[in-house]
Amino acid sequence: MKKEIAFVSDGSVTTPIGFLAAGVHCGIKANGKKDLALIYSERPCIAAGTFTTNKMKAAPVIVTQENLRPAQASIKAIVANSGIANSCTGKQGIMDARETCDLVAKALNILPEQVVVASTGRIGIRLPMDKIAQGITEAAKKLSSAGGIDAAHAIMTTDTFPKYGAVKFKLNQTTIHIGGIAKGAGMIAPKMATMLCFVTTDADITKTCLKKALSNAVEVTFNSITVDGDTSTNDMVVLLANGAAKNERINNVSSDSYRLFEEALTMLLRHFAQAIARDGEGSTKFIEITVKGAVTEQEAKAIGLTVANSNLVKCSLFGGDPNIGRIAAAIGRAPARLSAEKVSVWINDTCVMRDGTIIEFDRERLRSQLKSSPNVFIQIDLALGKASWTVWTCDLTYDYVRLNAEYEI
Amino acid sequence: MKKEIAFVSDGSVTTPIGFLAAGVHCGIKANGKKDLALIYSERPCIAAGTFTTNKMKAAPVIVTQENLRPAQASIKAIVANSGIANSCTGKQGIMDARETCDLVAKALNILPEQVVVASTGRIGIRLPMDKIAQGITEAAKKLSSAGGIDAAHAIMTTDTFPKYGAVKFKLNQTTIHIGGIAKGAGMIAPKMATMLCFVTTDADITKTCLKKALSNAVEVTFNSITVDGDTSTNDMVVLLANGAAKNERINNVSSDSYRLFEEALTMLLRHFAQAIARDGEGSTKFIEITVKGAVTEQEAKAIGLTVANSNLVKCSLFGGDPNIGRIAAAIGRAPARLSAEKVSVWINDTCVMRDGTIIEFDRERLRSQLKSSPNVFIQIDLALGKASWTVWTCDLTYDYVRLNAEYEI
Repeated sequence: MKKEIAFVSDGSVTTPIGFLAAGVHCGIKANGKKDLALIYSERPCIAAGTFTTNKMKAAPVIVTQENLRPAQASIKAIVANSGIANSCTGKQGIMDARETCDLVAKALNILPEQVVVASTGRIGIRLPMDKIAQGITEAAKKLSSAGGIDAAHAIMTTDTFPKYGAVKFKLNQTTIHIGGIAKGAGMIAPKMATMLCFVTTDADITKTCLKKALSNAVEVTFNSITVDGDTSTNDMVVLLANGAAKNERINNVSSDSYRLFEEALTMLLRHFAQAIARDGEGSTKFIEITVKGAVTEQEAKAIGLTVANSNLVKCSLFGGDPNIGRIAAAIGRAPARLSAEKVSVWINDTCVMRDGTIIEFDRERLRSQLKSSPNVFIQIDLALGKASWTVWTCDLTYDYVRLNAEYEI
Repeated sequence: MKKEIAFVSDGSVTTPIGFLAAGVHCGIKANGKKDLALIYSERPCIAAGTFTTNKMKAAPVIVTQENLRPAQASIKAIVANSGIANSCTGKQGIMDARETCDLVAKALNILPEQVVVASTGRIGIRLPMDKIAQGITEAAKKLSSAGGIDAAHAIMTTDTFPKYGAVKFKLNQTTIHIGGIAKGAGMIAPKMATMLCFVTTDADITKTCLKKALSNAVEVTFNSITVDGDTSTNDMVVLLANGAAKNERINNVSSDSYRLFEEALTMLLRHFAQAIARDGEGSTKFIEITVKGAVTEQEAKAIGLTVANSNLVKCSLFGGDPNIGRIAAAIGRAPARLSAEKVSVWINDTCVMRDGTIIEFDRERLRSQLKSSPNVFIQIDLALGKASWTVWTCDLTYDYVRLNAEYEI
């Protein structure tokens, strides 16, 4: 089997066969921008989802988890609004999320339990159900195989650019597509308390395989990014598979076809994860941190995320200052085994710490490199074991503070 | 026994009988400010210390831990410099820290192992030993019972004000003093990876009692503050007791006299902890967060610290925005048991969330209160159990980013 996975130009959630979408302005966002997305599959889908681990779960998360729970759950639509999160809204919020499903069911002639519902935005405010109803009616009319990018716009909040993409690959002679849209920006941290991401595929695949592929792919992508360590009450990744590609069913997690599917899914989700880190609120720099030589992958990841979440590291990189001490201090407080006298660190191609000691390096050259480039690569070698992990984040800037001190949708 | 503990006006590390101190400029800080502190006890002291849990320990931490380790350790001096941390400096750093002890021993005619050594400042740079030597000589000459406040100045880095204080209380007819100096500002987070604090007492107390009192007091004070979640490679709290008050020895952790000592020590350390949170880098607001109704104190503390470390919460309070959603989201991601539908939250005297639902409140009144006052009180009631905890932090501001993007001593 040739392992060729390719990105589809301008691909999105409507690239896989049989998926339609739309994004409309229903009136939640005061600036007139799109704020309601609808995704529809002509065929019933099996679904897998990962959800926020936050214990203050928003109403749409609770309702979607209910709809996905039955073993035979068959999903046909996703509805998502931006601007209001429908979180911390009590029983009324649950009723509003359920009513949103009812409205979609009515508009598309499906069952309410076939709907995935999601919200993002301001917490503690009720959804304006009249506007939601109107938006759903309008979106249902506008559904098209070209609507994926509109849908990507409609789930944005503080994102500065829409996030969409698709990949394709061949299983024997059959082309399989996986497409998606995502939103992020702030309150991004791992444990699937990250953001919204809706993924579609025309692959014919069993639920067991779909779930495992999603969970593995999320671990190395969305669970490896952080903007501020904060996690949201609302976030979910949902993956729908409608089987429209009519491939030989992927039904064995040890098979080559499964592995190819998981690899393609991971490629797509990594694309979204990196786009989200790159678009972190107020950020000016994309930061990739690779930790190697750890005893376990989990410990490599713990160190990577601790460095990525360090305000001091993030501020110094914003200022273009190679402040190795702060990186060292963050490494040292992570929950992971290390020997201080074995740790080496590189920033871009410059070794700045060898065997636990900060060494002489061309500080002015590195500083000017940091000031001029939007990308920073940090490599940490613990020289203890063989495990490694890569995480992504962004810098901490005046604009992050401004955006979050003055946040009003 | 009357439990009267009083703060001593302008008290410091030299308030207890028999302690002298000095703070001088030895030439590390380019701005000419004091950068070397020396504390001396005329009588040998028993000592207790808590140290950074960061695995990238600075040389002075390693050397001080060596000097405090022997059961019969008898300490007579503390030397601390600001400006350079002597961290990530390898074997040379250890040699420099030991040489610093040697220099103090020589100047004061004591043994090198009777010296506690500490450093704070820029990481990865060697100490200028000639300047340190000169500073020690000068400080030794200037030692006086009025020198505690100079010493407090000499350990400052980005602190905007010096931190010193003392308390006194009577054990039977004998007056006991406890005094100290501290520094903080950034890289403040619990687990005794916090800052420098040197405490002196003239109490006659056993080492067992001294250690337990310090460890208990640190847990509810320094381990309950956070500025940015970052922890340092250098930090320590060291408590010296010289017995000069000649009280009946405190030798039983169940005794009233021990309890009074611990209470007085806790009062003093709380004073420092709050001053450090109040002086968080770039901060404009002091934030006190009390969590009650938790199942365990540890879980109450975990929630308090998660809210305190949330960049989103800290930015919104900087902006005077009562963004309850972010507080709720931080509560929900803390490692603690809770029932979302039982959580209630107050900001100052305003209830903003009841039983998991954000309620109507006078948003404009609260907003103007937040904008005009330098103090914010958040109370969270989980309504699950009986445990509570209080933590302190500050807001996240443009100046935090500026200070840490442009940090140069």
